[in-house]
Amino acid sequence: MNHPNLHVVILAAGRGTRMRSSQPKVLQPLGGRPMLAHVLETAQALSPAATHVVVGHGADVVESRFASAAVQWVLQAEQRGTGHAVQQAMPAIPDDARVLVLYGDVPLITRPTLERLVDVDGPALLSVVLPDPSGYGRIVRDEDGAVSAIVEQKDANPEQRAIDETNTGVLAASAIRLKQWLSRIDSNNAQGELYLTDVVELAVADGVSVQAIQADNADEVAGVNDRRQLAQAERVLQARAADALLQAGVTLLDPARFDQRGHVAAGEDVVIDINVVLEGDVELGDGVEIGPNCVIRNARIGDGTVIHANTVIEDADIGPSCQIGPFARLRPGTVLVGDNRIGNFVETKKARLDAGAKAGHLAYLGDATIGKRVNVSAGVITCNYDGANKHQTIVGDDAFLGTDSQLVAPVTVGDRAYIAAGSTITRNAPDDALTICRARGQKSIAGWRKPAKNP
Amino acid sequence: MNHPNLHVVILAAGRGTRMRSSQPKVLQPLGGRPMLAHVLETAQALSPAATHVVVGHGADVVESRFASAAVQWVLQAEQRGTGHAVQQAMPAIPDDARVLVLYGDVPLITRPTLERLVDVDGPALLSVVLPDPSGYGRIVRDEDGAVSAIVEQKDANPEQRAIDETNTGVLAASAIRLKQWLSRIDSNNAQGELYLTDVVELAVADGVSVQAIQADNADEVAGVNDRRQLAQAERVLQARAADALLQAGVTLLDPARFDQRGHVAAGEDVVIDINVVLEGDVELGDGVEIGPNCVIRNARIGDGTVIHANTVIEDADIGPSCQIGPFARLRPGTVLVGDNRIGNFVETKKARLDAGAKAGHLAYLGDATIGKRVNVSAGVITCNYDGANKHQTIVGDDAFLGTDSQLVAPVTVGDRAYIAAGSTITRNAPDDALTICRARGQKSIAGWRKPAKNP
Amino acid sequence: MNHPNLHVVILAAGRGTRMRSSQPKVLQPLGGRPMLAHVLETAQALSPAATHVVVGHGADVVESRFASAAVQWVLQAEQRGTGHAVQQAMPAIPDDARVLVLYGDVPLITRPTLERLVDVDGPALLSVVLPDPSGYGRIVRDEDGAVSAIVEQKDANPEQRAIDETNTGVLAASAIRLKQWLSRIDSNNAQGELYLTDVVELAVADGVSVQAIQADNADEVAGVNDRRQLAQAERVLQARAADALLQAGVTLLDPARFDQRGHVAAGEDVVIDINVVLEGDVELGDGVEIGPNCVIRNARIGDGTVIHANTVIEDADIGPSCQIGPFARLRPGTVLVGDNRIGNFVETKKARLDAGAKAGHLAYLGDATIGKRVNVSAGVITCNYDGANKHQTIVGDDAFLGTDSQLVAPVTVGDRAYIAAGSTITRNAPDDALTICRARGQKSIAGWRKPAKNP
Repeated sequence: MNHPNLHVVILAAGRGTRMRSSQPKVLQPLGGRPMLAHVLETAQALSPAATHVVVGHGADVVESRFASAAVQWVLQAEQRGTGHAVQQAMPAIPDDARVLVLYGDVPLITRPTLERLVDVDGPALLSVVLPDPSGYGRIVRDEDGAVSAIVEQKDANPEQRAIDETNTGVLAASAIRLKQWLSRIDSNNAQGELYLTDVVELAVADGVSVQAIQADNADEVAGVNDRRQLAQAERVLQARAADALLQAGVTLLDPARFDQRGHVAAGEDVVIDINVVLEGDVELGDGVEIGPNCVIRNARIGDGTVIHANTVIEDADIGPSCQIGPFARLRPGTVLVGDNRIGNFVETKKARLDAGAKAGHLAYLGDATIGKRVNVSAGVITCNYDGANKHQTIVGDDAFLGTDSQLVAPVTVGDRAYIAAGSTITRNAPDDALTICRARGQKSIAGWRKPAKNP
Repeated sequence: MNHPNLHVVILAAGRGTRMRSSQPKVLQPLGGRPMLAHVLETAQALSPAATHVVVGHGADVVESRFASAAVQWVLQAEQRGTGHAVQQAMPAIPDDARVLVLYGDVPLITRPTLERLVDVDGPALLSVVLPDPSGYGRIVRDEDGAVSAIVEQKDANPEQRAIDETNTGVLAASAIRLKQWLSRIDSNNAQGELYLTDVVELAVADGVSVQAIQADNADEVAGVNDRRQLAQAERVLQARAADALLQAGVTLLDPARFDQRGHVAAGEDVVIDINVVLEGDVELGDGVEIGPNCVIRNARIGDGTVIHANTVIEDADIGPSCQIGPFARLRPGTVLVGDNRIGNFVETKKARLDAGAKAGHLAYLGDATIGKRVNVSAGVITCNYDGANKHQTIVGDDAFLGTDSQLVAPVTVGDRAYIAAGSTITRNAPDDALTICRARGQKSIAGWRKPAKNP
Repeated sequence: MNHPNLHVVILAAGRGTRMRSSQPKVLQPLGGRPMLAHVLETAQALSPAATHVVVGHGADVVESRFASAAVQWVLQAEQRGTGHAVQQAMPAIPDDARVLVLYGDVPLITRPTLERLVDVDGPALLSVVLPDPSGYGRIVRDEDGAVSAIVEQKDANPEQRAIDETNTGVLAASAIRLKQWLSRIDSNNAQGELYLTDVVELAVADGVSVQAIQADNADEVAGVNDRRQLAQAERVLQARAADALLQAGVTLLDPARFDQRGHVAAGEDVVIDINVVLEGDVELGDGVEIGPNCVIRNARIGDGTVIHANTVIEDADIGPSCQIGPFARLRPGTVLVGDNRIGNFVETKKARLDAGAKAGHLAYLGDATIGKRVNVSAGVITCNYDGANKHQTIVGDDAFLGTDSQLVAPVTVGDRAYIAAGSTITRNAPDDALTICRARGQKSIAGWRKPAKNP
């Protein structure tokens, strides 16, 4: 499908009172992004000529959050109903366009469903069959299957109440027709609002056939009006993400305990243990294993690398055959070339470890370049910050950094240098030498009396 | 509802053999508290004149666990049935009271349900409609809707077996009537026990109308007899807690992966990620975000503070705009005034950090008072314990504690003091000065030969 | 049941294309072991005379993975159907045997079900009643309840399609009969394959009564062909494991968030919090509590020991009354004798801590023997590795290791020795003495100017 002149209108002006939030409803997060971002992404996938977003409550906040989005912002200054909202967008839409109306708080709608709707000739609305349709407007069809009416719950007779096909509010129509019908709807109803749905009645009255396209499931047309519905939508989204990975051949030890907030590309035989959260752009090579309770954001992880339990990674580039964690923290700017080991209670930040370098325990490597096969012992810390500025530490290939040594940056440790345990290294350490800077003269004081417990 | 003279009797004498526990059944934990605590809390919410708890197995243990509870303990020395248990409590209950009988192992019963039961004039029992009623006593109603009989499964004819309204055992009646009926029940049954339920038959025989009030759902009247049922009750309780937070406007990224064991007060736009456990009294300010896998017990967390993944907090008072974790451990007595950062692998205990103070990595601050904007570098440790006593460390405003420095308490570091990396500070460090105490004379030994691997 | 001459044939030759894996299907992990291991374990529980595993795709890999298993490997060089696969195994099976055919990708089948099947005289197949049988072969029974036909979906008439009892493919028969029937099946079907199921038709034609034994539930006969089904099977397996522990009296705070990949033995009143993973052989004493998000592999944990949140343990022997974690990492070879405390950010490896020894924070104990009641302060590190070899550290009873001290192994610290904070200990420290080796002469430089931020 690729409609030559599709204009998408997204209604996003609502306040969302039931969210009890200081934020406009369409900015509530879903899968790590505002709800509206999902609708926009789906809309863009239809390659429309333009996307018009009708904003109202918190219009400024919404617009600034999507400042770089290729959309036309339309202000609905007063909230006078869905019909009124679409009216605001129509002046900018050419008569020969096909218009698709979406909702910023119906975030899980899918592209294939919309394509079916857009592809209809003439006006078409999206319906859904619900196990319990009570409260929703029922779709009454004529003998040809076309829509003859949408009957609200309160107006429905028993026969109509038995209908389980309901209106979703999503619809498509030609711009010229929609403009005409919108000009004719009125606010003679309890709320005093202009309802988009009323155009269906006008179309039928005009003798225009209105098709109803059924959504495959209720999840994709569910509206999100409160935190319960937001949580439900989050779970639907996550189940979709998990299912996509399973289908791609990833092992998820518990699909119900997996969260993806962004995009994941995974190679062959990737295994993801329970309770893992992947955020942003994550790329997992063949055979990557991620242990329980890891949180990984924006990272590339090379073939055969194993991330052990309770590891947190952000903005890192991790090569193949590494062993990371448990309890490792890789912060932005970490680059592991490959065959590296980062053990427990080790933090890296703006640190590049060349192939085979290891930091097994209790260490901090910040603003550092570490050579091949370097051994970073327990307790090693790069003193990269002097209280005002950050400085670099450079360590050559095959160096050995002894336990608890401190590298006061800027400082360079040479190739094959050996730093003695407990040393405070403030000047460069040459290649091939033992460098030491610690107290000497271990003394034992025999008559010494251990502190006594206070009374 | 506020009955003028309500007496609640809670049956809590059972052993709970199927729990396979050394503990009495009513002490099995649910939501972090003994089951009985939930029943007591619900009972107290009815503002009764008195609450009588009938104990038997492990009576001492139960009573001592609830030593401070305002309840009358009644000992049922022998377990001779529910009717016998209630008999033990009756002497202490005045004739003009209304009596409500509850069960220590039916912990999820709700106040609104009980209020409906207590509000009935005359005897009333609580019933529940079950999808599969087999095994339960069926409620047979007469043409007026009053209870005409409770028929046990084995005695039920096919028509009665088709009844899906069942007895829960919970009932309310006037004390004087209940005393009479209880004096007339007998133990002519297979178990040789006195059954409370038999009072219904006597009431009907006396021509007294018995009402049946239906519980809203089966969850709240479910008995807990084994660990499976305990786990189910735990999930029901947690789902209720999650739902209450959602309704209050909290975002829970997965309501099925949230545990609350105590009381939570939350401001606006609070976000709680997956797998978080909140225990005790937790107060979350506006805009607080809690990352995945955090465990927080008894804490106040100020507006806008973000707790990152895998953080553990206990008995702490955290101000606004802080960044905590990941992998932070805030132990009892931690006070963060605001705008603080506690990073990975940092532990605090009885430590007060004034506004803007930061400890970003691998540090231990115990028995310490840290001034405003102090920078605690990686590896800094307060040596608060000398093997016998704990001592205080005091650090002034704007001080800089260099990497891996040790502050041997009792010790004071002045305002704007700068402690050099690797220093062992055993005496006070003055204001505005660089204080250093580490080895000098970095030496490099060129002819040095790296240790060789043993054969 | 103990059939005198039972031969089990397990079909394990499939590739499992839909897994999208480089591994043969039967090696896909389930509960931490290859799927095939589960089928083999269940088969072995039947005490068969022999188990024949028919391999094909990845035969070498499968065989080497099960190199120590007491099975007969049978190569099916070409995959020509299930009948063909069983044919390959028959030559090695004596005529008087009873043959049971299982599938390497139906891993959850249970021993009681198979015993019922094996115990039948004559040929017997395993059936299962499905809520939605469409797509499966229906079991048509005659008036005596014997199987008269298996009708595939495409061949079924409406009446047959209404049958909800379906074929699982699992069957048992005498070897001599099976050999005869297998020699008579043909590949005149769309796939051109030999189907094991066709022997049923031949048996019926021969006037031999074929019994259908119904599996108790669909879970145990579910085939695993893709990652979705693998994930479903994993959850079924885990639910079984959780249920077994609940039944044994263990409290699981959320049975849906518990993973057991191996064998667990648990004492009385064990409490396991949410999201715990137990792997390998784990033995939990009475009253053991395991906090949220712990991962424990191959460990014995003594009575009354508490493992706090976010702790990772592997190959460790932990005595009674210990307090471990949160954020502790006990690596292989850790032995805690009892009454020990291992606190946050502490790593142990090949370390034995005698009774009452404590390491509360930020420490690494590797290749170490620590005496009774030793206090290991924050920041203590055993320097066990010199870049080439590992060395031992021995610490006597009641010693005190001051903050940030480094023990450069090999080294011995005596009984009641006191190591001063910040010391680098390179030589043995005697009993009862204060041993110190750190910089002296703390100096403060008043005129010192703090580094200024770069422009």
